[in-house]
Amino acid sequence: MAVGRVSLVGAGPGDPELWTVRALRRIEEADLVLYDALVDAEALRRVTHAQCFCVGKRAGRASVKQDTINRLMIRAARQGKRVVRLKGGDPFVFGRGAEEMLVLAHAGIAVDVVPGVTTAVAAPGAAAIPVTHRSMSAGFLVLTGQTGAGLNSALSSVRPAGITVVVMMGLGERDEIARQFITHGWSPDTRAAIVCGASTPEEWVWTGMLADLGSPAPPDGIAGVLVVGEVVSIGEALVAARARPAAVDEVKYGRS
Amino acid sequence: MAVGRVSLVGAGPGDPELWTVRALRRIEEADLVLYDALVDAEALRRVTHAQCFCVGKRAGRASVKQDTINRLMIRAARQGKRVVRLKGGDPFVFGRGAEEMLVLAHAGIAVDVVPGVTTAVAAPGAAAIPVTHRSMSAGFLVLTGQTGAGLNSALSSVRPAGITVVVMMGLGERDEIARQFITHGWSPDTRAAIVCGASTPEEWVWTGMLADLGSPAPPDGIAGVLVVGEVVSIGEALVAARARPAAVDEVKYGRS
Repeated sequence: MAVGRVSLVGAGPGDPELWTVRALRRIEEADLVLYDALVDAEALRRVTHAQCFCVGKRAGRASVKQDTINRLMIRAARQGKRVVRLKGGDPFVFGRGAEEMLVLAHAGIAVDVVPGVTTAVAAPGAAAIPVTHRSMSAGFLVLTGQTGAGLNSALSSVRPAGITVVVMMGLGERDEIARQFITHGWSPDTRAAIVCGASTPEEWVWTGMLADLGSPAPPDGIAGVLVVGEVVSIGEALVAARARPAAVDEVKYGRS
Repeated sequence: MAVGRVSLVGAGPGDPELWTVRALRRIEEADLVLYDALVDAEALRRVTHAQCFCVGKRAGRASVKQDTINRLMIRAARQGKRVVRLKGGDPFVFGRGAEEMLVLAHAGIAVDVVPGVTTAVAAPGAAAIPVTHRSMSAGFLVLTGQTGAGLNSALSSVRPAGITVVVMMGLGERDEIARQFITHGWSPDTRAAIVCGASTPEEWVWTGMLADLGSPAPPDGIAGVLVVGEVVSIGEALVAARARPAAVDEVKYGRS
């Protein structure tokens, strides 16, 4: 009897060139690909002859139930198929990767995990915002904005002190999320950013102050992250420097 | 006059198959590659005819000075060369990516950033530890263990409450780091892990309790991350489930 397997694969923030080499290989060799809505479906079909099904949420339409996804993966693997479960970003960053892995492991199905470029880092990066920066950000905290109560509890456990906070899946609640930050002691004029559709042709960036996070209107129907912290100013400085490079004399290099 | 450019490229945790497709393309097309010590130099030479120089720290030997790296990049770009600055993990996660980008932008050199798979997520993932997991970890905090004072300040700003903490570059100080966590309110029996050389043939994993973080002896000369949080137990459960899959009847799927 043929023995199949499931690969939980991170697809990165959107651009298929940000798939890893191993992700590309798993996709090319797959018999079945179950992909999330943020994955580039056209790119998928260009590189594989596998059956490809979108099992993720699309604007307004409900996603396929998790139980159904699990059942599809297990059945196909038992038929000897090579299954790729392709997720936006990294499978272990708010991707339910471990939940699916547990189900598969208990069903005796071989699973491997192919990490991906996480949107939590790549989306700020697309706006030239580094999540860490010496003497400005000693680290970064990644949260989900999906559940108001969870975010509230997470924010109450961290003090506004020299750390970058990235909130994923909080675009629709950004006004309320900004209020929660301010309630928990963040200054209303903390630098903040919204990055939508990072690395895709629809990429959209706003930077400003935490208090104004609710004002801009990102385009409909694309995912985005919120960034809160002084590192946003680095992104702004880099964009300015690109537009108007200073005289080379000003640059402090080569003096050591 | 030829116009060169610099690409700041994330190389991921170690395995060259975890380079992104774009990273591979930038490396293939490069004239000069300046790479960190964690990058697989043999893989590099297999795919490119570029001049390749290691500018990162190796055990005991000092790394090339940042000013020298900047000068090399600028000079080569001005000569019309395509330069790849290849960094372990992601350029914006404790990688000085923004610092190099600022210097290059001020020098009028075109820069692009190619994000990479961050070791902060991929190293725990290599041990099947998800940095987030529903009803267990509402998010994750990434810190550096390099400066005791900085870590202390970062830990004092976060309460031990349902968040995974990943400490990078803290392997040598793991005993002191564990003490700092406990001083800041983490329970000594919080689950903890050490993952060294993730995704490389030298991969080495230890899991246990925070209080025992200083006891195990990871192999010399390879980089590692510390993971503190209950999600470590998921990794342990997954490893156990792989070794002895439960009867399929036990699996809760397909009942909805």
